[in-house]
Amino acid sequence: MSFSPLIRQLIDALRILPGVGQKTAQRMALHLLERDRSGGLRLAQALTHALEHVGHCRQCRTLSEEELCPQCADPRRDDSLLCVVQGPMDVFAIEQTGYRGRYFVLKGHLSPLDGLGPEAIGIPELLVRVEQGVFEEVIIATNPTVEGEATAHYIAQTLASSDVTVSRIAHGVPLGGELELVDGGTLSHALAGRRPIDL
Amino acid sequence: MSFSPLIRQLIDALRILPGVGQKTAQRMALHLLERDRSGGLRLAQALTHALEHVGHCRQCRTLSEEELCPQCADPRRDDSLLCVVQGPMDVFAIEQTGYRGRYFVLKGHLSPLDGLGPEAIGIPELLVRVEQGVFEEVIIATNPTVEGEATAHYIAQTLASSDVTVSRIAHGVPLGGELELVDGGTLSHALAGRRPIDL
Ligand SMILES: [Zn+2]
Ligand SMILES: [Zn+2]
Repeated sequence: MSFSPLIRQLIDALRILPGVGQKTAQRMALHLLERDRSGGLRLAQALTHALEHVGHCRQCRTLSEEELCPQCADPRRDDSLLCVVQGPMDVFAIEQTGYRGRYFVLKGHLSPLDGLGPEAIGIPELLVRVEQGVFEEVIIATNPTVEGEATAHYIAQTLASSDVTVSRIAHGVPLGGELELVDGGTLSHALAGRRPIDL
Repeated sequence: MSFSPLIRQLIDALRILPGVGQKTAQRMALHLLERDRSGGLRLAQALTHALEHVGHCRQCRTLSEEELCPQCADPRRDDSLLCVVQGPMDVFAIEQTGYRGRYFVLKGHLSPLDGLGPEAIGIPELLVRVEQGVFEEVIIATNPTVEGEATAHYIAQTLASSDVTVSRIAHGVPLGGELELVDGGTLSHALAGRRPIDL
């Protein structure tokens, strides 16, 4: 015993943050109380406001406190492209590439063993969105994992009867790494997906 | 732009936590909003309560919502020993060693260039505490840094006229490491502080 009850409660509460263990939580709690109380107050308020007001965009299902998120509300984006991702963080990652089409955000991936079927992850809403839109292409950008691939495959099958092109982001060797560190499956995909070099 | 304003504010607020950069703050914000809203609410409340109620123990100056912290309120501890540390986190570290005397928590170390003299870090309160107590030994456990050493030296001088023994935690090689990785200054201290082996 060395921290008082309210400090222990704060340390426990901080441990719900991803990647934060006991030691880090202690450091965070004491930092806020000893050195940055105004920052701590701002954090408590920002968290309370976000939890109270942030829901899901009614069009793409990403997190947003407005009915339409910034990406859906922007009239200058390309209405012919729809990118399907597994979560809000992926929208941020795809935005960094310069993509300026629309999005649809699933609630994770299909996981039959956990009872997560198409309805649980929002595929019916995706179909409605595709029907209501004027998309020419649906780009499936679920994770390059077994579950992400299975989810991509299921969506492609479901959309096969519609008249949009369905594509999948390319697999291959990541930029900047060393070939000997790339796993065999990735390397197979990279070989099979080889393209002529433009000179 | 890909997060709505309230989410951006939450991400910014999370960055005040020590060791949390932009990417980690994003992951934390989306985790709380997408997967653990009850945990997020608990964190906001724990933080608000702690900021409202936690002050400093009137005896040892560590963080506490009670007038006396758990260490000062415990009647079973050794009243003849006082351990002086730089901050509340150090109390936790010393407790782990099994030490069960009393504490005094400074506000960091002396730092004349930053205008932090003896008053700023609480040395007058330390002297009052030593006078009022029945301590036989004051153990100075400030950090083994240049500033921590200077602070220890200053306290030892200040207490020289009192009738308590003033000691400093030992410097030496840390347990479990390899000698070739220990810096020269530490190794010099370890050599100079060598002791006979008890057989
Ligand atoms: Zn949206
Ligand atoms: Zn105390």
